Amino acid sequence: MDWINGGKMGKTLVEKIIGNKVGHDVKPGDIVTVDVDWCMIDDIMVPFAVQKFEEMGFSKVKNPDSVVLIYDHFLPATQVDDTRHFREGDEFAKKYGIKNVHRTDGICHQLMTEAGYVKPGDIAFGTDSHTVTYGCVGAFSTGIGYTEMAGILGTGQLWIKVPETIKIEIDGTLPGNVTSKDIILRIIGDLTASGATYQAIEFTGSTVEAMSVASRMTMSNMAVEAGAKCGLFVPDDKTCDYCKIKYDDSIKALKPDNDAKYSRILRYRAEDMVPVLACPSLVDNIHPVSELKGTKVDQVFLGSCTNGRLEDLRTAATILKGKHVAPFVKMIVTPASRKIYREALADGTLEILSDAGAIITTPGCGLCCGRGGGILSDNEVVVATNNRNFLGRMGTSKVQIYLASPATAAATAIAGKITEA
Amino acid sequence: MDWINGGKMGKTLVEKIIGNKVGHDVKPGDIVTVDVDWCMIDDIMVPFAVQKFEEMGFSKVKNPDSVVLIYDHFLPATQVDDTRHFREGDEFAKKYGIKNVHRTDGICHQLMTEAGYVKPGDIAFGTDSHTVTYGCVGAFSTGIGYTEMAGILGTGQLWIKVPETIKIEIDGTLPGNVTSKDIILRIIGDLTASGATYQAIEFTGSTVEAMSVASRMTMSNMAVEAGAKCGLFVPDDKTCDYCKIKYDDSIKALKPDNDAKYSRILRYRAEDMVPVLACPSLVDNIHPVSELKGTKVDQVFLGSCTNGRLEDLRTAATILKGKHVAPFVKMIVTPASRKIYREALADGTLEILSDAGAIITTPGCGLCCGRGGGILSDNEVVVATNNRNFLGRMGTSKVQIYLASPATAAATAIAGKITEA
Repeated sequence: MDWINGGKMGKTLVEKIIGNKVGHDVKPGDIVTVDVDWCMIDDIMVPFAVQKFEEMGFSKVKNPDSVVLIYDHFLPATQVDDTRHFREGDEFAKKYGIKNVHRTDGICHQLMTEAGYVKPGDIAFGTDSHTVTYGCVGAFSTGIGYTEMAGILGTGQLWIKVPETIKIEIDGTLPGNVTSKDIILRIIGDLTASGATYQAIEFTGSTVEAMSVASRMTMSNMAVEAGAKCGLFVPDDKTCDYCKIKYDDSIKALKPDNDAKYSRILRYRAEDMVPVLACPSLVDNIHPVSELKGTKVDQVFLGSCTNGRLEDLRTAATILKGKHVAPFVKMIVTPASRKIYREALADGTLEILSDAGAIITTPGCGLCCGRGGGILSDNEVVVATNNRNFLGRMGTSKVQIYLASPATAAATAIAGKITEA
Repeated sequence: MDWINGGKMGKTLVEKIIGNKVGHDVKPGDIVTVDVDWCMIDDIMVPFAVQKFEEMGFSKVKNPDSVVLIYDHFLPATQVDDTRHFREGDEFAKKYGIKNVHRTDGICHQLMTEAGYVKPGDIAFGTDSHTVTYGCVGAFSTGIGYTEMAGILGTGQLWIKVPETIKIEIDGTLPGNVTSKDIILRIIGDLTASGATYQAIEFTGSTVEAMSVASRMTMSNMAVEAGAKCGLFVPDDKTCDYCKIKYDDSIKALKPDNDAKYSRILRYRAEDMVPVLACPSLVDNIHPVSELKGTKVDQVFLGSCTNGRLEDLRTAATILKGKHVAPFVKMIVTPASRKIYREALADGTLEILSDAGAIITTPGCGLCCGRGGGILSDNEVVVATNNRNFLGRMGTSKVQIYLASPATAAATAIAGKITEA
C-alpha cells in the first residue's frame, strides 16, 4: 500500500459528474444544489418519508417519474406492522402518480440499475446507506434521511457538499479464489470504517477494468463501510452494455482528468490479494481466511445487494456442485432480484444449490437486515456475503458474523467450518 | 347428505389397524396399549419433549429408529429463540442415537410418508395436530402432546381408546374446478368443527378411489378440523406405488368389512360439489366461492401440508401460465418439501409461477403457522390453501383468512378478488 498526495489540477470523476449537473466547475467543499435524477425509497422508510412530505405541506410530487418505491426489507413480511409500509407506499404512489413501484422484484440497490433507472452521470439519492451502489455505473448516489427525501419529493432538488476523492488503483490479475469482495474488504480494513468519511472513492486500474459490472457493484456497495459518500467506477463499454445505452462521447468524457487532485491514492497489486473475512463485529476487522481456518459455523448466508447476483450464485454453485453442505449447517441463498432468481432458475444454478442442500428464499434483503429468515441466537456463527457484521444485525448481540466472498461462503458451507475456496 | 346408522358386525379400517397391532379384535371404546411404529417431533415441540423425557428419568430412547425429528415451522428462523429448538434437537439426536433428523427438507407431515417412514397399517404419533395426515396411506396416526411423546420415547408404547368410525362415501366425477380440498371443506362444514370428535373418519367411494395419494392427503390432513382422531383411506395400488411397497395380500386385507359398524355414514355425489371457501374465522364456516365472488384480497398463500404438493403447484401453474397476479396482490408459494421444490423446479412449474409474479419461498410451514414470511395486518384479506383460518393465525386478529383450493387461490390471485377457477 502506498499513500501519495495527488496533484493540484483537473477534476476527479465525482467533480465531473456534479459539475456536469450544475453546469459549472466544482471543487471539494463547494456546496451546490442539484436537480435529482432518481429518488429511491425503500419499504422501511416509506411511511416516514410520506409523513414528512405531508408535514412540509407539498401538494404534489415534483417529478413523480424520478421516484422509485421498492419493497424489499420487509418482504415477505414477518411482523404484523410490515404490510402497513407496503400499503402506505401503494397509497402514496396512487395519490401522487408514482408509477415506479416494485412490490416483489428484489433489493432496491440491485433494481435501481438492473431495472434501467440509474445511468452513468446521474445523481441519485435513496433512503438507505447502500445507495452508494450505483457508483458501479459511474453515477453519484448516496444515502439520505427521510426528511431530505421528503424535501426532494417536493422540490426535485437537494444540496451536495462536493466531496474530496480517494483514488484506489488495483492492477494485475486476481488469484482464482479472490473476488471483488475480498478486495473491498481489504480496502476497508486499510482505510478503516471511518477512513473515507464524506469522501468519494474512485476505483481504477486494470483489475477493476477487467471486472464485470456485478463485481464492481460489490465494491461500490461497500464504499460506505469506509464512510465514503460514494464509490465510483469510470463507465466503460461493459457499463453501457449493462445499462443498455450507447458507449458514446458523453459517456467517454465521464472520467477523471489525468491531473485530478486526490486527497489520497492507494495502490494495490491484485496478485497480493488473498481471501479475507471481516471478523466480528466490525467491518474493518479484516483477517485472511487462512487465519480463521477451522472456526465452526452454524449458518452460511449467500445474498444481499453486496453479493446476491448471478455471478455470485454461480461461483457458489461451481463449488457446491455434486457436494453437500455440512449436516449441521444451514446455507441460505437469497438472490438479489427476481430477474437473477429467474436466470439462476433457467441456467440450473438453483438446481445445483438446492441439490447441495441450500435453502433458497425469495429475492429481497432477507437475512442481511435481520428481518427475513435465518435469525441466529447466542454464540452461533454465521459466514455471510453481505456488507455489515454489526452486533445484533442477524439475531442476538452474541451472534458472531463473519463477512466473506461467495466463494469462501460456499467452501465454508461444505466444510462446516471457515475454509478457503 | 344422508345419515344412516351402520350394521352391527365386522370391523372398520381403524379397528383392523389397531387390532392387527395388538393381536386381537378391538371395538370402539376399548383402551389398548400399542407398540408405536413412528414418532414425529417437530421443531416447535422438540425442547419440551426432550425436557419431559429427561424429567421422567429415562436413560435411553426405546426405539431410536422410530423417532423422526423435523425442523419445519421455524425454518428459516425469524425469531432469536428459534435456532435453540434446532440445536436442542440436534443435541438430543446425537445423545440418543436418533438418525432421522430432517433439518431443511420440508413439512413434517409431508416427509413422514414421502421420505418412506409411515406405511399402510402403521401406527404413528406426532407432536402436531395434523399428524392425522398419514391416514392417506391407511395408517393410524394422530397428534399428541409432548408429555405423551416423552413417554413413547422412553417406553415405545402408548395407549389408545379405539375410536368409533364415521364413513364418508363420495361417488362420481368431480367438476373440473373442484378438488379434494373443496370436498373436505364441504364435509367439515356439514360435520361441524366438533362433529367427529374422537372418531375415525373413513373416506370411501369411487371419487376418492380415483384420487391421487396427494389429493387424499389433503382430506386426511383436515380430518382433525372436524375433531377426528384420524382420517383414513383404504390403501390401494396407488398407495403402494407412493410408499414403494408391494400391493400384496397383507395390504389388500387392510380394508373395512362389509358389515363394519359405523357411528354415521355420509354420502355425497361428486357432481354436486362446487368450489367452496372456509370463511373467517372458523373452519366450518363454509360457503360456495360464488357467494363471496368479488371480495378484494391482499394476499394469496399456496402451500402447507394441506396443499403444498406438486399437483397443487401444477394446478396453480396451469391457471397462472402466461398471466400475472394482480399488481396489489402478493402471492406466496411454499412447496411442502425439498423434493416437491426440486420437482417443480425441474418441470418448469416454479418458472411459470415466478413469471406470474409469485413469491416462491423455501419449503416448510411458512405462512400457515404465522411464523414464516407473509404476515398480515388489520383488515387485510388472504386466500390461503392451508387448513386453519383461526383468528390471529397469520397476523393480527383482524386479518380475514379464507381457506380455499389451489385452483381457487390461483384464480383469485390473478383477479385480485375472490374468483372461481
